[in-house]
Amino acid sequence: MGRESFWTTEPEEFLRVGEDFVLADQPTHAKYGFNEGKSEGKDALAEGAGILGELQEQLYAAGTVGERRRVLLVLQAMDTAGKGGIVSHVVGAVNPAGISYKAFKKPTKEELAHDFLWRVAKEAPEAGQIGVFDRSHYEDVLIGRVRQLAPPEEIERRYEAINQFEKELAFGGTTIVKVMLHISKQEQGARLADRLERPEKHWKYNPADIDERMRWDDYQDAYQVVFDRTSTEYAPWYVVPADRKWYARLAVQHLLVRALENLDLGWPEATFDVEAEKARLAAS
Amino acid sequence: MGRESFWTTEPEEFLRVGEDFVLADQPTHAKYGFNEGKSEGKDALAEGAGILGELQEQLYAAGTVGERRRVLLVLQAMDTAGKGGIVSHVVGAVNPAGISYKAFKKPTKEELAHDFLWRVAKEAPEAGQIGVFDRSHYEDVLIGRVRQLAPPEEIERRYEAINQFEKELAFGGTTIVKVMLHISKQEQGARLADRLERPEKHWKYNPADIDERMRWDDYQDAYQVVFDRTSTEYAPWYVVPADRKWYARLAVQHLLVRALENLDLGWPEATFDVEAEKARLAAS
Repeated sequence: MGRESFWTTEPEEFLRVGEDFVLADQPTHAKYGFNEGKSEGKDALAEGAGILGELQEQLYAAGTVGERRRVLLVLQAMDTAGKGGIVSHVVGAVNPAGISYKAFKKPTKEELAHDFLWRVAKEAPEAGQIGVFDRSHYEDVLIGRVRQLAPPEEIERRYEAINQFEKELAFGGTTIVKVMLHISKQEQGARLADRLERPEKHWKYNPADIDERMRWDDYQDAYQVVFDRTSTEYAPWYVVPADRKWYARLAVQHLLVRALENLDLGWPEATFDVEAEKARLAAS
Repeated sequence: MGRESFWTTEPEEFLRVGEDFVLADQPTHAKYGFNEGKSEGKDALAEGAGILGELQEQLYAAGTVGERRRVLLVLQAMDTAGKGGIVSHVVGAVNPAGISYKAFKKPTKEELAHDFLWRVAKEAPEAGQIGVFDRSHYEDVLIGRVRQLAPPEEIERRYEAINQFEKELAFGGTTIVKVMLHISKQEQGARLADRLERPEKHWKYNPADIDERMRWDDYQDAYQVVFDRTSTEYAPWYVVPADRKWYARLAVQHLLVRALENLDLGWPEATFDVEAEKARLAAS
């Protein structure tokens, strides 16, 4: 639980996808490790933001002196589950100079002409950065599977291709944190209804969201296969209960804090002679 | 002065580089349009952040329904002038999904093999985005001129090339805001001394900064030429007094708020039949 004061137990073990994980058994309304309510949750998020911000600055500083380490946050979820809120409230609390954010949309013709990992590999974060994938290569085995956008044998091939790709990233110095925001179908219904009720939210609504909602169970099955095949030691999945937006934000912030704490960062030593530079400055 | 409550007079006219502008006559310690001190300035920044955040969301929303408009903030300054603070405190208050941030470092071999605008043009922001250039093509007529990194006739050619490039961007829907953070040589000396005093700031210190500091007057001259040749109707320069960090942040935030207010944004109308979608949702 590191520097954060507000966890009663470490939530990571409840969130991490291990052996025999069953998505259908996972609650969407839990708040593992946090005993209090929404208002305290928001205060905790502000405290955690300060901690995350300092850790990220240390990661960035390490990058400036030649360290190769970086972090990659992968965000996947059903529509309305709160990816946007994670980006604005968790990622948004960090200095933009240390963030490399990429939203993966429907692939272009050029992207489709390449292997599905081509567009993703190009966006891997630089040393010193926290990369954020808002959707990712997992779309190619989620909507790709549900909508049969590729032949079954090609979908099959992709799981192992993803593992190899992520292993390379991890061994090259990238800490990978993969998050699925887990909401109930009922909660999604309420959020879509809210978007339809409020004119200033209409731009967030897409009629295609209903088409996907009607395949809810197929998507849950496709996520289960993703977890079975791609939750690895070097790139674990976390399933975060997301019916409470404030809890999901706190949990994802914590996963980032934890990933950075595990890098055992600090401030880099001077690569120059401090006294000599003071003399040069005085003379300038 | 739009929605912000805290300006006593519109600061834009004091900041904008017009005809007969003389950099050497510009104060570095002024706080045009703001009568109070640092503490009130910080409160004002928090108020402005909320306004900027909502305007940026409207710009982003417009992008999702096919609008072409975007904003580009260009940041230039001597070392320690506070670009980093603008990025973290002004840009950082906006949703990262709506920001396209690019730090231009020393050009690579590949970049040098192309025209100086090649690497810059690739980073122009998409519709709906606020692009932020942390340094920019202006380095090619600043350090480029001072250090004679290209022949004089090539440096000469670049000013007009920049104007043409920016005119194209502007006519394509980009509101361009170019900011030079203006500090005194004395204040820079104090900030460099501070970095040398504090071990956790050593990573921010670069001995090469002193080399550039020793050419202070040459850089001021090079900036003057930049203002004479490239402050245009479609891409004006603003010189922001930056000895007070808090004022510089407030002023740059205001320039962004103003740029967005001038786009006369709002929430896009629904592109679908709201009642029909409510029925589809109810049935799903």
